[in-house]
Amino acid sequence: MAGENRAPVTVIGLGAMGQALAGAFLAAGHPTTVWNRTARKADALVARGAVRAGTPAEAVKAGDLVIVCVVDYQVSQAILDPPAAELAGRTLVNLTSDTPERAREAAVWAAEHGIDYLDGAIMVPTPVIGSPQALLLYSGSRTAYEAHEATLKALGGNGRYLGADHGIAPLYDLALLNVFYSSMAAMVHSLTMVGADGVTAEEFLPYIKQFFALLPGMADQVAHGIDTGSYPGDLGNLTMEAVGVDHIVEASESRNLDTGPIAAVRALMGRAIADGRGGDGFAAVTEVIRRAIG
Amino acid sequence: MAGENRAPVTVIGLGAMGQALAGAFLAAGHPTTVWNRTARKADALVARGAVRAGTPAEAVKAGDLVIVCVVDYQVSQAILDPPAAELAGRTLVNLTSDTPERAREAAVWAAEHGIDYLDGAIMVPTPVIGSPQALLLYSGSRTAYEAHEATLKALGGNGRYLGADHGIAPLYDLALLNVFYSSMAAMVHSLTMVGADGVTAEEFLPYIKQFFALLPGMADQVAHGIDTGSYPGDLGNLTMEAVGVDHIVEASESRNLDTGPIAAVRALMGRAIADGRGGDGFAAVTEVIRRAIG
Ligand SMILES: NC(=O)c1ccc[n+]([C@@H]2O[C@H](COP(=O)([O-])OP(=O)(O)OC[C@H]3O[C@@H](n4cnc5c(N)ncnc54)[C@H](OP(=O)(O)O)[C@@H]3O)[C@@H](O)[C@H]2O)c1
Ligand SMILES: NC(=O)c1ccc[n+]([C@@H]2O[C@H](COP(=O)([O-])OP(=O)(O)OC[C@H]3O[C@@H](n4cnc5c(N)ncnc54)[C@H](OP(=O)(O)O)[C@@H]3O)[C@@H](O)[C@H]2O)c1
Repeated sequence: MAGENRAPVTVIGLGAMGQALAGAFLAAGHPTTVWNRTARKADALVARGAVRAGTPAEAVKAGDLVIVCVVDYQVSQAILDPPAAELAGRTLVNLTSDTPERAREAAVWAAEHGIDYLDGAIMVPTPVIGSPQALLLYSGSRTAYEAHEATLKALGGNGRYLGADHGIAPLYDLALLNVFYSSMAAMVHSLTMVGADGVTAEEFLPYIKQFFALLPGMADQVAHGIDTGSYPGDLGNLTMEAVGVDHIVEASESRNLDTGPIAAVRALMGRAIADGRGGDGFAAVTEVIRRAIG
Repeated sequence: MAGENRAPVTVIGLGAMGQALAGAFLAAGHPTTVWNRTARKADALVARGAVRAGTPAEAVKAGDLVIVCVVDYQVSQAILDPPAAELAGRTLVNLTSDTPERAREAAVWAAEHGIDYLDGAIMVPTPVIGSPQALLLYSGSRTAYEAHEATLKALGGNGRYLGADHGIAPLYDLALLNVFYSSMAAMVHSLTMVGADGVTAEEFLPYIKQFFALLPGMADQVAHGIDTGSYPGDLGNLTMEAVGVDHIVEASESRNLDTGPIAAVRALMGRAIADGRGGDGFAAVTEVIRRAIG
């Protein structure tokens, strides 16, 4: 059997993502033990060879590597704290998405219980899990990462260890999700906006795609500005750009569309302009994103 | 001389963009007449062979094709209305960015004065003007576009005529700018956020670029959802995604960062969830972007 020489793995949490993770371990031949609050979500995995555990404690005891992927850390801690004694001496990889602060708290808890703890973040949708391109970010215990890197490769070929701070993978996760959801919301807004004038999303989509292709090029300039604190406005300045954003808000309002996100961007630009940065480039808004304390 | 067989062109407005436009016409050998409120902005162009007009009326009379590119339509109309009689029988291409509504009003004004009027939008930064990839969108008079297409090619190789409605090029313009500024603001936020924990923008940038590469792929699904009114949530649902966005807001607040734009995205998601769409995919927010009237 393909699984005979593979390390046994436990997967706790079988939502859309947990099922994809357990499925990838099975596909790679790892003996896989699973647990989920709603037990029937394990059915398809059990049919493929997974072992269904009756309790989290029973699931944890199946091997050295325990993966958890549930809705948030409040839930993962509620599941993992009762069997903390069984987790002692084992490796925990928490692939649940949450804040850096909660990952750091979990690291304190894990250290207190003698659990070797690695935090992780999954940066791809479920169908990409198990493929060479799948990007997964890890941080925390380096020994845990090095001991299980080969096994974790079953989840995605593009795994990156970011350092000993357990909060760094969640920080990267949230920063990337921020770009993702903001861009998705803007795309839905723009498609809704052209739709109001009878243009289909399919017709307009090629223009959006062409435009997205420009963004990585602009990113270099923006990143350089943020690292150096200098935001040259010679190619485009905030004052001129704010006029354009006002037009977006106005045209959205006259089509009876919500303007929340773009109006909030305009507010940031306005505060930067009020601070005397009207001649600077867009990246100068970093100065007002950092709020004055007090 | 290279210019001898080329059509004469007038450029009104010599900001960063107007200078780039006039420069591209000169480079392509067109006799180019320019006017700007602040006359000295024509100096470098005059040194390259442009003719400086003393008034907009004088500028207009230099040839059949008049390009205008200023800060907004209020300004372009204030400049163009006095010499409306001189514009009669000529072609006006307004490359100023503004709302579809204002372009349609300008079209009514142009028709009343016998001006052949094409609206346009420039979708690239100034250094790209004149290059084969430069995307310019046009709508309005088809005869104007066809008569001057060859001359307009001097500004950018990627010119697109979108139809007879003068408002359509400005609509596309604003919809693309919305994606642009929203994505730029999110990128600056995310770079500021990782910076708060000591990660440089340069270090984090490769992850953002990798992530941007995913967006065009997601766009197909979103566009299909919007055109069909169906938003399957099997790969990711709004309820789970809202938990992730809450984490972004929370982690930003604990770093003392402004949360305006992402909080506004979260508010849209919350309204869609309240409408019973928690099991749907992200594109379902289109339903709440369209505001209930009354
Ligand atoms: N889906 C994606 O594309 C994707 C991509 C990247 C990262 N992620 C991350 O992966 C994690 C899981 O996402 P998902 O898509 O799998 O979510 P999901 O389909 O909504 O599944 C949620 C999971 O959490 C469990 N859970 C929720 N409340 C619980 C409670 N009070 N007690 C015990 N278990 C509870 C659920 O158990 P029940 O089945 O019993 O409800 C289920 O296993 C999230 O952190 C998400 O951000 C997801
Ligand atoms: N820059 C870009 O990267 C870019 C890219 C795409 C599209 N665009 C669009 O191109 C247009 C021009 O942008 P820009 O970058 O050239 O802006 P800009 O550098 O700020 O120039 C503004 C122009 O408007 C004129 N103007 C402003 N108020 C005026 C008034 N009351 N009366 C007469 N003239 C007035 C200015 O004349 P003075 O010189 O006398 O002030 C100048 O010619 C905008 O619609 C912009 O959205 C720009």
